[in-house]
Amino acid sequence: MLSGGSGHSNGYSGYGRRRPRLGSRRARDHRRGGGGGGPFRVCSYEPSSSSVSNASYTDGDRVAESQWGEYDRAYFQSYSHVAIHEEMIKDHVRTDTYRAAIMRHQNFIAGKVVMDVGCGTGILSIFCAQAGARRVYAIEASEIAVQANEVVKENGLSDRVIVLHGRVEDVEIEEKVDVIISEWMGYMLLYESMLGSVIFARDKWLKPGGLILPSHATLYMAPITNTERYQDSIDFWRDVYGINMSALLPLAKQCSFEEPMIETVSGENVLTWPFVIKYVDCYTVTARELESVTARYRFASMMRAPLHGFGFWFDVEFNGPVLYPSNHHSSSLSGTSSSDLYSHGASTQRKRQSRSSDTIVLSTAPEDPPTHWQQTILYFYDPIEVKQDQIIEGSITLSQSKENPRFLNIHLEYSSGGRSFVKESVMR
Amino acid sequence: MLSGGSGHSNGYSGYGRRRPRLGSRRARDHRRGGGGGGPFRVCSYEPSSSSVSNASYTDGDRVAESQWGEYDRAYFQSYSHVAIHEEMIKDHVRTDTYRAAIMRHQNFIAGKVVMDVGCGTGILSIFCAQAGARRVYAIEASEIAVQANEVVKENGLSDRVIVLHGRVEDVEIEEKVDVIISEWMGYMLLYESMLGSVIFARDKWLKPGGLILPSHATLYMAPITNTERYQDSIDFWRDVYGINMSALLPLAKQCSFEEPMIETVSGENVLTWPFVIKYVDCYTVTARELESVTARYRFASMMRAPLHGFGFWFDVEFNGPVLYPSNHHSSSLSGTSSSDLYSHGASTQRKRQSRSSDTIVLSTAPEDPPTHWQQTILYFYDPIEVKQDQIIEGSITLSQSKENPRFLNIHLEYSSGGRSFVKESVMR
Repeated sequence: MLSGGSGHSNGYSGYGRRRPRLGSRRARDHRRGGGGGGPFRVCSYEPSSSSVSNASYTDGDRVAESQWGEYDRAYFQSYSHVAIHEEMIKDHVRTDTYRAAIMRHQNFIAGKVVMDVGCGTGILSIFCAQAGARRVYAIEASEIAVQANEVVKENGLSDRVIVLHGRVEDVEIEEKVDVIISEWMGYMLLYESMLGSVIFARDKWLKPGGLILPSHATLYMAPITNTERYQDSIDFWRDVYGINMSALLPLAKQCSFEEPMIETVSGENVLTWPFVIKYVDCYTVTARELESVTARYRFASMMRAPLHGFGFWFDVEFNGPVLYPSNHHSSSLSGTSSSDLYSHGASTQRKRQSRSSDTIVLSTAPEDPPTHWQQTILYFYDPIEVKQDQIIEGSITLSQSKENPRFLNIHLEYSSGGRSFVKESVMR
Repeated sequence: MLSGGSGHSNGYSGYGRRRPRLGSRRARDHRRGGGGGGPFRVCSYEPSSSSVSNASYTDGDRVAESQWGEYDRAYFQSYSHVAIHEEMIKDHVRTDTYRAAIMRHQNFIAGKVVMDVGCGTGILSIFCAQAGARRVYAIEASEIAVQANEVVKENGLSDRVIVLHGRVEDVEIEEKVDVIISEWMGYMLLYESMLGSVIFARDKWLKPGGLILPSHATLYMAPITNTERYQDSIDFWRDVYGINMSALLPLAKQCSFEEPMIETVSGENVLTWPFVIKYVDCYTVTARELESVTARYRFASMMRAPLHGFGFWFDVEFNGPVLYPSNHHSSSLSGTSSSDLYSHGASTQRKRQSRSSDTIVLSTAPEDPPTHWQQTILYFYDPIEVKQDQIIEGSITLSQSKENPRFLNIHLEYSSGGRSFVKESVMR
């Protein structure tokens, strides 16, 4: 209680922590949080009673680490830090929407068997138990499974929620499941490649006619103008305390250009309607289909503005299984990209019209309340001045990195006003 | 310009970037920014003209990388990213105070020779040139030296500001200097161990009676209460969406406890007057003296409150050399800690009284405007409820890590209300 004000707000106030990213070649440890990751490190605490008192959590259930690749080990370790779970749970857009979706499908879930792929602290599994699930298999490969198991016990749900510490690809259960729930979405939707585990679980464990939550996911792209940010971090160098530091401009541009930025932009930064790069039907999508996603896009700017780059975001829907034939597995579009179905300007509107008005949607769009996913921005080295109705077109390919399948290679081609560019980047 | 608001403020707005930290064993890349580091990676841009056109920046001046240790290479590489320099320059408390100090000593600097140890983008060197320095040796080991050299050229200062790309321990110049300026302070003052390079430069290059800016540094410690943070990240787990997640409490406490946190607290979080752990006279301090700093402390809490941990911060002063005998090098207190001189409760007040009222001070204290250094907090595993006037006492030792001399080992002993604790941590 010493003298002095506490109302400063120059950007250093409080303590900021973000969901971290996977890491670079230099082994950054975590995922989600590139916009401002905290000093995450693995800290562990082993409850004294947990690992032997519950039949569902024994050494036998635990997959030997040697079966996991090095990358997976680093990946799962990143989820053993408590702060990443705190951040995800505190993203109320995320958690509230999942809970609402579970409650919306309560009639389907009640009395049924659920599998939660990557349960983390177990919160979604417990929501499902609250919705009346007869049994929930809560599967988690990271060490946080230890705490999830304790949470389940302390809430008197051990008879219904079975925490399995291992990868979903490795666990064995004795029944098929009616529902698969998972929060698998990474930055730009596909970063982390966790959807592959959901697909695996679906093909191996989901009964025909079962429910998958979320059921559909859509990855969007739109041209972005962001003069404020450009002035703040690029033009800044033109006059620094009266000194011409333009010599820093190439480096500053390179640093913004070189890799995807996780930032929050608003609807005002978006130059026209977004384009759907990829529409994922979780009932039919195949792992092969996700190895590489290519889409051609074409925008007409709705205004005159400097085009600074492209923004990417996603939404997921929580539809019931009634819309789908029971033989959905055979209807998958193996090896082809369903995004071709949406490759024109009005695609978003068309798609949205087909959504039921009461469909529950978790959106990470600039015009919606922000989430911890924020948006992903690929900045250009130099902005392009576009006129109203000027065409911006090209193609984008997102593919799993050979270096680490959880990384995302981004190949972007874009043309406007007679100039063409190619940009390669990697989300590590 | 799509529909939707842009006024959300749930913590994900904008793009946050912070000065990064050195890294853990897993090779986090950078320093300063543990409170929320961005996705820093090394991005480089080589100006086409720089490296040969200026005699001061030739291959001959560049120290062979093989002479540097692995840790130094990672350390200096962290300063090649533009964002770290943007953040430091935009810390106006820092930059304004340095500029004011240079202008305050303009009479001393004018016509003299200056050495800037770790010049970064060169901004302090240029301030010195603006103050009339006859020559400034701007020494920078990281790749940002390339841009610093360009900045100097573009501002027509090449005849007076000589950028030398290398470690100060390795560069050779042909004259002694009148002034050494450096922004060497890390978290908790001593993190990064960059002061050792200033000491080296002083002993090798500074003329007797020369000026060192800053001239003095003081590291403070005080007991901290932070109920808001405790509730937000620890008590949070007691009730998460109505679920008892207390099983996460031990892990959450461990994660807060395990390593120093870089956070901004306010004067209201400080339970009593701070204690001076270390007072550094940059004219006399020795490298040996900094290898390990130990201080015994004793606080009397000014209020009843939960004691959550200790906060650490520093300030630096920019005094002239007139207060010091010209044979200052021989007056150093080699091997002893000057903090013994201040080892009682009223030390801060006494010390402050000895400051001239017009001394320029760069403060990172909770009661002063926040800086990018924020404060460093060592949290306890469990808070200690203290009464008014209750004594909190113990000792602290800060020592350079054997693992990496730029890391800081922290050994903390504390007792209060009849209970004693020992806490070991490492700032990586």
